[in-house]
Amino acid sequence: MNKLVAVARGELPADFVIRNARLANVFTLEYENSVDVAICGTKIAGIAKSGSYDGKKIIDVDGRVMIPGMIDGHVHIEDTMMTPPGFAEIAAIHGTSTVMADPHEIANALGMSGLEYMFKTSQGLPIDIFFGAPSCVPASDFETPYDELDMIAIKNMFDKNLCQHLGEVMNFPAVISGDAEIWGKILAAGNVPLTGHAPGVSGKNLNAYLVSGISSDHECVNLDEAREKLRLGMWLMIREGASFLDLKTLLPLIQENVLNAARCMVVSDDITARYLIENGHMDVKMRIMCREGLDPLVALRMVTLSPAEYFRLYDRGAIAPGRLADFALLDSDRIDENFRVQQVWKNGLQIMSDDDVFTRENNSDFLAPVLKTRVKNIPTLEQIKIKLPDSGAENINVIGVTEGTVITKTLQLKPLIRDGYVIPDSSRDIAKIVVLERHRDTGRFAVGFVSGLGIKRGAFGSSVAHDAHNYVVAGADDESIITALKNLAEMGGGLTVTDAEKVLNSFALPIGGLMCYLNPYEVSENLTKLETSAENLGIMIKHPFMVLSFLCLTVIPELRITDQGYVDITRGGIQKIFA
Amino acid sequence: MNKLVAVARGELPADFVIRNARLANVFTLEYENSVDVAICGTKIAGIAKSGSYDGKKIIDVDGRVMIPGMIDGHVHIEDTMMTPPGFAEIAAIHGTSTVMADPHEIANALGMSGLEYMFKTSQGLPIDIFFGAPSCVPASDFETPYDELDMIAIKNMFDKNLCQHLGEVMNFPAVISGDAEIWGKILAAGNVPLTGHAPGVSGKNLNAYLVSGISSDHECVNLDEAREKLRLGMWLMIREGASFLDLKTLLPLIQENVLNAARCMVVSDDITARYLIENGHMDVKMRIMCREGLDPLVALRMVTLSPAEYFRLYDRGAIAPGRLADFALLDSDRIDENFRVQQVWKNGLQIMSDDDVFTRENNSDFLAPVLKTRVKNIPTLEQIKIKLPDSGAENINVIGVTEGTVITKTLQLKPLIRDGYVIPDSSRDIAKIVVLERHRDTGRFAVGFVSGLGIKRGAFGSSVAHDAHNYVVAGADDESIITALKNLAEMGGGLTVTDAEKVLNSFALPIGGLMCYLNPYEVSENLTKLETSAENLGIMIKHPFMVLSFLCLTVIPELRITDQGYVDITRGGIQKIFA
Repeated sequence: MNKLVAVARGELPADFVIRNARLANVFTLEYENSVDVAICGTKIAGIAKSGSYDGKKIIDVDGRVMIPGMIDGHVHIEDTMMTPPGFAEIAAIHGTSTVMADPHEIANALGMSGLEYMFKTSQGLPIDIFFGAPSCVPASDFETPYDELDMIAIKNMFDKNLCQHLGEVMNFPAVISGDAEIWGKILAAGNVPLTGHAPGVSGKNLNAYLVSGISSDHECVNLDEAREKLRLGMWLMIREGASFLDLKTLLPLIQENVLNAARCMVVSDDITARYLIENGHMDVKMRIMCREGLDPLVALRMVTLSPAEYFRLYDRGAIAPGRLADFALLDSDRIDENFRVQQVWKNGLQIMSDDDVFTRENNSDFLAPVLKTRVKNIPTLEQIKIKLPDSGAENINVIGVTEGTVITKTLQLKPLIRDGYVIPDSSRDIAKIVVLERHRDTGRFAVGFVSGLGIKRGAFGSSVAHDAHNYVVAGADDESIITALKNLAEMGGGLTVTDAEKVLNSFALPIGGLMCYLNPYEVSENLTKLETSAENLGIMIKHPFMVLSFLCLTVIPELRITDQGYVDITRGGIQKIFA
Repeated sequence: MNKLVAVARGELPADFVIRNARLANVFTLEYENSVDVAICGTKIAGIAKSGSYDGKKIIDVDGRVMIPGMIDGHVHIEDTMMTPPGFAEIAAIHGTSTVMADPHEIANALGMSGLEYMFKTSQGLPIDIFFGAPSCVPASDFETPYDELDMIAIKNMFDKNLCQHLGEVMNFPAVISGDAEIWGKILAAGNVPLTGHAPGVSGKNLNAYLVSGISSDHECVNLDEAREKLRLGMWLMIREGASFLDLKTLLPLIQENVLNAARCMVVSDDITARYLIENGHMDVKMRIMCREGLDPLVALRMVTLSPAEYFRLYDRGAIAPGRLADFALLDSDRIDENFRVQQVWKNGLQIMSDDDVFTRENNSDFLAPVLKTRVKNIPTLEQIKIKLPDSGAENINVIGVTEGTVITKTLQLKPLIRDGYVIPDSSRDIAKIVVLERHRDTGRFAVGFVSGLGIKRGAFGSSVAHDAHNYVVAGADDESIITALKNLAEMGGGLTVTDAEKVLNSFALPIGGLMCYLNPYEVSENLTKLETSAENLGIMIKHPFMVLSFLCLTVIPELRITDQGYVDITRGGIQKIFA
């Protein structure tokens, strides 16, 4: 006879009972006061008035609020520079029980083996991680990833059960134009949630995007865009991460029509170790919503039941009989802008107690081998020089960076010429930028110019360079740039700050050039040191490594650079240096 | 290149465009005025401002409301006495596009072949019919159906793709007690919606029912019961059919918390041909909700998007790009208590136009052979006599019928004795009732007494006798009863009214003794004639054949009768005649 049902009926004692809880009910959006929640194995067996259930252990929580484990519907774990175990630990202690991860960074850097690595290292953690099949590797034809993941690769990911849904389909122009390769990927995913990425797409183009079956979007940045997408049936993932903060802007959607909470969730998208330390994970999104005046239980639905329903995870998203025993206890008797997560259970196991000590084994040491390409073909000082054409040139194209936006401009500026070569000009904030292909050591590189970083001397570089993640270095002189490229190659990826022949500071990211084995405090500390070094070179923009990492992302306008050269998607592709 | 996306983009003309529609948006719960809806093949390609899309045909609807095809989340088609084609036609013209049918009546009467018949005759109709695997055949051990459908049978139904979800799990005591056979059926269904039936179940028993994964219920008859079920995570199917009218009672659930509309739907459950003719189908439920003051768009969500989401039918439930072109046009510019459905499209085909003429071929003639057992073993006059025991008897047990409720009582009444036999006593409204096994012609029958029908003379009988659907006859004298049994056997099932050796009126139901090939008008007319004949025998209760049909249903308290004898589930099973 089955134990779960006997516990539910009250005929066998539960493994443990949470007594006298104030249960946050995400179905009816009310608190249920003074209840027993009986747990049997990994599941919730029963909920009833306090004192109803007997258990081998009774945990009286004295009226504190009990919430379901929270769900992040869209996050790129690689952006934290931590492996899944490292990320899981800090997410878990903030009350997260499940995340939907899109591993397209590691898929660009290590192909299918990167995806397999993420999947393997995600087993047995204090949170469940479900993966979206990365649908856009490469992000465009102008980027050079480790490997192209085509429609057959997508099918393999599902056949191997590595993925639960289709990851954000970023190549919206291809979907809209009916491109066979992207449609093949969508159809290969089969009957799973197809997640989208359609910034600013509207009208007939949005209709064309949606007839594919793609059913969600996390790129809305204003109410009109969000309303149009809701009306056409999309689920909205309202983004609130480290760099994109859309929550306050989009909350009126819920305030004007509470039923929209049944079709909206709140997600992280891009997130950093520092954000997790300083703010938290889904809990900080809850606090923001409370501060903005949203009914806390409606807010809670959007980080629990709504994402569970969108992703068809019927075993979670609420505290209810038969669902997984994933829940957290807060430090108070209400959810408000000040609450803190105090105790956490996952699958019926307590993974955080009051004193914030992990009661589960730390899985960070569980590692799988990953492919690493040693880059040997590094350009010489001579090779990265830009010779003025014999015909001369009025202007050069320069990537224009503006702080606070990921959009760049195509600037046309007068070149500074020395000895027949175009050189960086720190007096006008024009630095040189070099991208070197690193996945297959082809030695292919491209050189361009960038304005807006504020760099006065030296160089800084990274192997985190969306989405293909080749080596990118920007600098005020060629020697510093070559030193940075060499240092990146030595580390097998990471971040570096150089001045002439000297490495001022560096931080290795051995896993695909994206992640390391450190915990969030160590990652954050390393990053702070790197940023301080960069500041010493005169760089005044905030988060310079993040800014640098986006200069290679060709799917965002305007001018970008990859190992194939300048790219401006709004102007049709590859661009020349000389205007 | 794919046509659907080209139409969406506006580069190819649509097959047709509904222009100037007032679209009822079930996502955002608002009207969108003056829109184009472009259709390509079976799907909606695009929605945009009127005049945006070009089409081979433009249908200007002059601001009339356009609603998604409506969805009935739970209905027993057999109760209409029509086959799926007959039912589909009248449902379709009322704006229904999809129904979730639980074929447990035909499954009791014809086993797996009955289910296959329903499935086959449901193809190519103007509505889509999805079946729930009948989980309770027989409904209890005290009923004798054509065949027992065990857990292996359930698995076969899914393996053959006959079923989309698990049909209502009525045997809640078995679920709660952890019975292996019913749990085996639930697990055999796999990862599909598991629909429930748990009248009055609450507290720990309800928890025990729900740990099975069953996730919905259509049996709530009051607000407290409904609230408890919602809190524990069940989806509510609010029932509004021919005999059970729960809508008005339960609407406050939505009025007090509009987000409940995301977890509630409105369903028919039991429905008759007459109800469909006189009231309509899902449209009448909409009119009732409007009359009760519910926001019409919230009401609409509960008969479109909400059931689609519960049943994981992501291709319907709303008018949106990529979804099926299932929709209806109303006769006015608003949804209110008086609207009528005027034009209907299913899969992009118009199936009803203004003048109410079917534009599709009527599929009623599409028939598959079904099994029929010829009953030859009919009891004799002598055999159905009830002899007083030698020891005498103070009282007999009598089924007590009360008009307006399906619950019966166990009455203990003094018997009327003649020549050593207990006989019916019309002066005290005590009739004799006989149930004869009909599926395997075993000749097994049982005799009992029933009070509350008002029958003065003659007998009336039926092969519709929930849930095993054996022959049931109630009468004021033995000869009329035998005549009725013989007539039922001759017809191979149906309804009959007899007086002594004469058949006053009869109506054959050749398909499993439950359904016929007639249309709803003919069915209703036949039934009216039968009821008039029954009235002539003195029967004063409304819908006597329906009342009779429920007297064999052992899963409802208190006293019932099957071919195995009296059954009272509240008193543990088989009961004797003499108290």
